[in-house]
Amino acid sequence: MRLRHKPWAKDFMVEHPDVVIFEDEKVKDWKEIFGNENPIHVEVGTGKGQFVIGMAKANPDVNYIGIEHFDSVIVSALEKVIEAEKPSNLRLIRGNGANIEDLFTKGELDRLFLNFSDPWPKTRHAKRRLTHAAFLSRYENVLKKDGEIHFKTDNRKLFEYSLVSMSEYGMILKDVSLDLHAQMPEDNIMTEYEEKFSAKGQPIYRLESYFKR
Amino acid sequence: MRLRHKPWAKDFMVEHPDVVIFEDEKVKDWKEIFGNENPIHVEVGTGKGQFVIGMAKANPDVNYIGIEHFDSVIVSALEKVIEAEKPSNLRLIRGNGANIEDLFTKGELDRLFLNFSDPWPKTRHAKRRLTHAAFLSRYENVLKKDGEIHFKTDNRKLFEYSLVSMSEYGMILKDVSLDLHAQMPEDNIMTEYEEKFSAKGQPIYRLESYFKR
Repeated sequence: MRLRHKPWAKDFMVEHPDVVIFEDEKVKDWKEIFGNENPIHVEVGTGKGQFVIGMAKANPDVNYIGIEHFDSVIVSALEKVIEAEKPSNLRLIRGNGANIEDLFTKGELDRLFLNFSDPWPKTRHAKRRLTHAAFLSRYENVLKKDGEIHFKTDNRKLFEYSLVSMSEYGMILKDVSLDLHAQMPEDNIMTEYEEKFSAKGQPIYRLESYFKR
Repeated sequence: MRLRHKPWAKDFMVEHPDVVIFEDEKVKDWKEIFGNENPIHVEVGTGKGQFVIGMAKANPDVNYIGIEHFDSVIVSALEKVIEAEKPSNLRLIRGNGANIEDLFTKGELDRLFLNFSDPWPKTRHAKRRLTHAAFLSRYENVLKKDGEIHFKTDNRKLFEYSLVSMSEYGMILKDVSLDLHAQMPEDNIMTEYEEKFSAKGQPIYRLESYFKR
C-alpha cells in the first residue's frame, strides 16, 4: 500500500476516542468498553477498514476490533467508521499486531482475521509474515481454546507458506477455499484488496484454522 | 477415464509375471522381488503408468510399485513398461488400493503417491476419495514413521477436501504448491492427466505430508 504522510492524522484520531484506542492506552477490560460480554473478533492489519466495518454492521452480536499500524491508513478506516455512524460494536486500535499479547489477555478473543497481509516475499523476511510461527504463538495465547483464525489473501506464495506454517505449528485446518469467489459464500465481506484483485480474475485463497489443544 | 473392455487383458498380464503381480498373490517379501533393500515408493491408482515408469527410470535406487484396479487401464501401463524394457526397480500390482494393508506389512513403505485421483465430487461418495480418513489410516499403517504422501491433482475441490482431511487426521503438511507448473520443479514427472490439464492452463495442485507420530 502506498503511504501518504498525513500530519493531521494523530489529532483526528484523538478527536474520536470512542472509536480509536491507542496501543499504549493498555485497555484492561474490553467488556467495559463494549458494554457487553459478546465474543470479540479482531482483524490484524485492518487497512482502510472496509472488512471490519462490514462485519460489525452484519453481526451486531459480535464485537469487532481492527488493529492498524499506519496512521495514514487507519485514518481512512476512521473516516469510514464515522460515515457508518460509529457502530457500537466496533473499535480501532492504532498499534502493531506484533504486540497483540499486550492488547489482550490470555484466551480473551474468539476469532482473529488476517486479510491480505503483506506477503513479505523474500525468505529473509519470512519472520515478518503474519502467519510465521512467532505470530501464531501470540495468536494462540490471546485466542480462546476453540478460537479460530480466518485468513484470506490473493497471494499464492503467502497462502502456500501459511498452510505449511500453520500445519507445522500444530494447527488444524477446518476449511480451505482455493477460489473463494468461484462459490462466493453469502456472508463474505470483501476487503478493498479483495475487490481489486478478484476483479482482475485472480483467485482469492481462504482458510479457517484452530489450535489443537 | 473411459474404460474399454479388453478381453485379452488378463492373459497379457499373466504373460508378464516379472512386471504384473496380482493382488491375491499375497507377496510376502518385496525385498526378494526387487533383489535389494532399497526404499519402496507406491503409486495408488497408477493409471496408464507414465508417472511411475518415469520415476523408476529417473531414480534407479528406489523401488516403485504402481497399483491399478482396472484391467483395461493397467494393460496400457504394462505395454509402456515393456516398451521401457522392464526397469528392474518397477512392478505393477493389479488390485484395489483400498486393500493396501493386505499388500504391504506395517511400516514397509517409504512414500505413497496419489496422482489425479478420482475426485468423487458428490458428498455421499466422500468415503471413496483416496484422501478420506479411512484411506489415510491404511496409509499410516503401511508407511514408515517418517514416510510421506505426495499428492497432486487438477481438481480444486478434491485438493481443498484433502488439505482439511489430512489436517484433521493429524497429518502435517510439509510442502504445498497451488500452481505446480508456475515454477516447475526440475524433477517433476508428469502424469498423462497432468500433461492434458496443464496444457489447458489449469493449475496443478500438489502437497507433501506426513503423519505426526
